Amino acid sequence: MTNIPTVAELGEIESLKRTVSRLNGSDFAVVGSGDDSAVIAASDGRFVVTTDTMIEGHDFRLDWSTGFDLGWKAVATNVSDVAAMGAKPTALVVAIAVPGSTPITFLEDFADGLKAACERLAPGCGVVGGDLASSEQVFISVTAHGDLQGREPILRSGAKPGDVLAVAGTLGRAAAGLALLLSGDTDAINAYDALVDVQKRPEPPITAGIGLNATSMLDLSDGLAKDAGRIAKASGVRLVINSKDLQGFEAMLDDVAMRLGVSSRDWVLGGGEDHSLLATFDPGVELPRAFKPIGHVAEGEGVYLDGEPIAETGWDSVTG
Amino acid sequence: MTNIPTVAELGEIESLKRTVSRLNGSDFAVVGSGDDSAVIAASDGRFVVTTDTMIEGHDFRLDWSTGFDLGWKAVATNVSDVAAMGAKPTALVVAIAVPGSTPITFLEDFADGLKAACERLAPGCGVVGGDLASSEQVFISVTAHGDLQGREPILRSGAKPGDVLAVAGTLGRAAAGLALLLSGDTDAINAYDALVDVQKRPEPPITAGIGLNATSMLDLSDGLAKDAGRIAKASGVRLVINSKDLQGFEAMLDDVAMRLGVSSRDWVLGGGEDHSLLATFDPGVELPRAFKPIGHVAEGEGVYLDGEPIAETGWDSVTG
Repeated sequence: MTNIPTVAELGEIESLKRTVSRLNGSDFAVVGSGDDSAVIAASDGRFVVTTDTMIEGHDFRLDWSTGFDLGWKAVATNVSDVAAMGAKPTALVVAIAVPGSTPITFLEDFADGLKAACERLAPGCGVVGGDLASSEQVFISVTAHGDLQGREPILRSGAKPGDVLAVAGTLGRAAAGLALLLSGDTDAINAYDALVDVQKRPEPPITAGIGLNATSMLDLSDGLAKDAGRIAKASGVRLVINSKDLQGFEAMLDDVAMRLGVSSRDWVLGGGEDHSLLATFDPGVELPRAFKPIGHVAEGEGVYLDGEPIAETGWDSVTG
Repeated sequence: MTNIPTVAELGEIESLKRTVSRLNGSDFAVVGSGDDSAVIAASDGRFVVTTDTMIEGHDFRLDWSTGFDLGWKAVATNVSDVAAMGAKPTALVVAIAVPGSTPITFLEDFADGLKAACERLAPGCGVVGGDLASSEQVFISVTAHGDLQGREPILRSGAKPGDVLAVAGTLGRAAAGLALLLSGDTDAINAYDALVDVQKRPEPPITAGIGLNATSMLDLSDGLAKDAGRIAKASGVRLVINSKDLQGFEAMLDDVAMRLGVSSRDWVLGGGEDHSLLATFDPGVELPRAFKPIGHVAEGEGVYLDGEPIAETGWDSVTG
């Protein structure tokens, strides 16, 4: 039997060394990790920055997610916010705090997850700095950076009446995965492991966002209804979603929804954490292949499903 | 009696709103907070980035530090790492997690501390994004950015034999402050409150670092002996500290050291968290006013006090 040393047994310096040695660097680093700060290229004299935090017991459970899953998800959720500006992800800094009793393999897996997600979702992007600390509760905080490559950022405020509303990526799958995990129904979890995987290791459509010719865009982290409301508010418009355009998304979840006794529409409209991209396009623009139209922009305010307003809080119960 | 609402009572959105409304923005923000990401100017096509984390019970205690203190210190420790590259601090992102039972005034004080430290230490720099989360333990993670304004970054690796070794800022004062707090001696804590203040709200010499003409530089976070060792290692040189040049730093601490029965030299050589700047200068360069010479760079390796090598771990016990 192998004895896996803990972080406390190895000490901070050795633990950090073992973790960092597994990471990929960033193609955009002028000075990488190891000094007081890193120096990163910003080709057009600007950079994009966003941060997101994940906390044990609130955002994840260690009996559901491995270190690899958490590293992957920390990258995915952050680079998705960079891509939602139309920018190319370039560099990450990562802070993680763990109890001293944590086996070093957890941190090594975490590093492997960071690396794998960078390579898969945002090639060229890598970790350029970070912090390893002691805590009683696992805490992960990532700050991601991106390069607009001379383009204007795509904000939430640019949608205008007549625009096409479209989505790239999945809807409701991460929520279905969470519902499966919460059900504790091992058979169902095994049967629908692809949905559980979306919850644990989301694959947001990062490349679909970079350089997009959209009038507005955001990352769907809190669910379609709520996040659409953010574009509507920031742009001073009404977003109208066509229920028939959601049927394809719902059909993929009907089976498992029936098994768990819930509505697949609730997941599609209210489920968070898919990290898909919701965008609006000028009607004269050809829709990029990754985007599927689900409605349009009108004069007014709020979010409508066909002719009916969606209460912003209507799907809160399933967002986790 | 006023009833101060808790973060849980107000909810995340309202708590965040009250906190963010107290912050200053960044003069360098092209797009500030409120979208998926912020967009920050990087005048010379590069940016500097660093991150640092503070955790309740490990890096601070809530019975010693107020929300204001913690906001201040989170800024100070991070912009110090930016200045140690020779860069001007431009923008911060801040993640904080607190228990739901935390009174909202704690977060408001934290925001006031962030703002006050930016205004005092790094004018023009401000918070451009962040995250408020729930946890059982208070957790603060800041990522700071800076602009080199066309200059080369000052690394740890540029020191060369013959250079002058010099420091800007205090030595040992933060460690003395920590020792006072740990002593629990209320009379001593009151008598030496200026030292306690250095521990709780450090004032690193940020402006002394920006645009400095030094061959190497770093931020003294782990103590003079240990951090000098980092320059020596990265540059492949020996750093020789003159004990007589430390006497001025020691004299200021002799009184309180005697009271606590410790050695002021231990604090000066080993005490962390002053966040002073340690730098090396070409002997032909006039030393900037903020810097005091404390030794020189020689061929060889390691850190010497006069003719004797300093064991790198010799002052570990006081670094907290």
